[in-house]
Amino acid sequence: MRDKIRIGVIGGSSPPSEALEQAFQVGRLIARAGAVLVCGGLGGVMEAASRGAKEEGGTVIGILPGQDFQAANPYVDIPIATAIGYLRNALVVLNSHVLIAVDGSYGTLTEISYGLIYGRKVFGIGTWEIPGVISTSGPQQAVELALKEAKNAYS
Amino acid sequence: MRDKIRIGVIGGSSPPSEALEQAFQVGRLIARAGAVLVCGGLGGVMEAASRGAKEEGGTVIGILPGQDFQAANPYVDIPIATAIGYLRNALVVLNSHVLIAVDGSYGTLTEISYGLIYGRKVFGIGTWEIPGVISTSGPQQAVELALKEAKNAYS
Amino acid sequence: MRDKIRIGVIGGSSPPSEALEQAFQVGRLIARAGAVLVCGGLGGVMEAASRGAKEEGGTVIGILPGQDFQAANPYVDIPIATAIGYLRNALVVLNSHVLIAVDGSYGTLTEISYGLIYGRKVFGIGTWEIPGVISTSGPQQAVELALKEAKNAYS
Amino acid sequence: MRDKIRIGVIGGSSPPSEALEQAFQVGRLIARAGAVLVCGGLGGVMEAASRGAKEEGGTVIGILPGQDFQAANPYVDIPIATAIGYLRNALVVLNSHVLIAVDGSYGTLTEISYGLIYGRKVFGIGTWEIPGVISTSGPQQAVELALKEAKNAYS
Repeated sequence: MRDKIRIGVIGGSSPPSEALEQAFQVGRLIARAGAVLVCGGLGGVMEAASRGAKEEGGTVIGILPGQDFQAANPYVDIPIATAIGYLRNALVVLNSHVLIAVDGSYGTLTEISYGLIYGRKVFGIGTWEIPGVISTSGPQQAVELALKEAKNAYS
Repeated sequence: MRDKIRIGVIGGSSPPSEALEQAFQVGRLIARAGAVLVCGGLGGVMEAASRGAKEEGGTVIGILPGQDFQAANPYVDIPIATAIGYLRNALVVLNSHVLIAVDGSYGTLTEISYGLIYGRKVFGIGTWEIPGVISTSGPQQAVELALKEAKNAYS
Repeated sequence: MRDKIRIGVIGGSSPPSEALEQAFQVGRLIARAGAVLVCGGLGGVMEAASRGAKEEGGTVIGILPGQDFQAANPYVDIPIATAIGYLRNALVVLNSHVLIAVDGSYGTLTEISYGLIYGRKVFGIGTWEIPGVISTSGPQQAVELALKEAKNAYS
Repeated sequence: MRDKIRIGVIGGSSPPSEALEQAFQVGRLIARAGAVLVCGGLGGVMEAASRGAKEEGGTVIGILPGQDFQAANPYVDIPIATAIGYLRNALVVLNSHVLIAVDGSYGTLTEISYGLIYGRKVFGIGTWEIPGVISTSGPQQAVELALKEAKNAYS
């Protein structure tokens, strides 16, 4: 478990249904590749990705804003409470080797920015198009590129 | 002091010289209006704005990433240590009624994003042009709009 | 303001009336000596000490657990919001040169412990008697010793 | 994994050898009971307990002060970086159902205090004897009582 690649999936808590489907596929592909999915542990993109990962027998770490670790969505295996509200967005990033952003609003933008501050590559699916975010054609390409990046950078 | 308007000035730590001059003017205008300047307490835009405010006899709060409150730039009157690194960016926002962004890189983008999450208006001078940031023609207009917004929203 | 001694006053939010009176005296003596009072910004010992300081024309910094800086007690001049709940206890300590503990429960004990971790001397008035806390006979002695310590250690 | 009892083991980073042996036994007993061990992820009591848990095939979550999750001791399965220094002590507590303290200095005392603030029972082995800490005769009794408490309180 310690040596597995960790892919952070970030995105909005109330996204359009297309983004939910994409996040679900991202979660499935991460689990199928044997990587660990890291997310913010709540709803929307976070939950859809978590559900995808669980469907493939993967492992999900959810880093929560509140002080109750049981508040995580039901697909999180390892919920971590932080009690620091939106400041926990930085922790989602720090605990991932690489990030995939799906859709997302300002919370996701803090995570993308922290990713670029802390030197994480960010692969995007219909998300903020700011310099530094690498746009992809969808879940398949995003997960492929993320795995490749993580293997190169951390092994 | 408690009832004064607080204007947060955010921006890069190593900006081009034009941004430093703009930040300096922003600081002067904030102090001249009797408002308190809040910033991250370090160099670049933060220091230039602080210097501007001090030149007009203003008050500067600097919210620092490290654990030593004496690490603030010399123009900060009230340095606050946090020991939480870049997570302190959220605290710069929370302690301001309204924000002015000058230039800036990814750290500034986390602050802009936190601003929009926490309901602060963000006025921009040559900074990230993302939805929600209100572009201005320069220091004069930015401070005028910021003061107007703060007076409307908090009195 | 930047060069003034900062004395942190820590203690319970619902202490017995004797502790409130002691905290009030501590606040008065801090202000009379020209030092800045730092506290957690809320009620009980924090508010009594703040009130004492204001009565003597002093300055009070209140470092709050929540995200709204207006939640501070009415005697705080410079409220600082943190949004990190009880984790802010460490920030009360970091922003003080020296600490005076009056009464207090487990929250105060985290602050005393952080004080001893971060190398702050802790002077006690009817508080936790653990190794490292220097017991005093009351407000007069506590403030005298705190001022002496702060002057020696930081000038 | 989600529904397993989590027992936090707290204690000093450079304790006497007797405490290391006790922490090791605590780790073994936690793993043997099928519970998850949560700790601060670094050396001393944290590492000894982690090593004990791994020797019995258990699972260890390590919540680290720094920003690099690879800095955890080699027996941690799930390292979590926080970048908030000693403020992370509160997170060790929040992510445990119940705590066992072995030896320990001021850092441990912040954790005991946070435990009592957040309503966690704290069982002690040669640690701070403050009101609220339940002294035990050693690893066997501490783990038995901790498991019993966790089962009663959270099921």
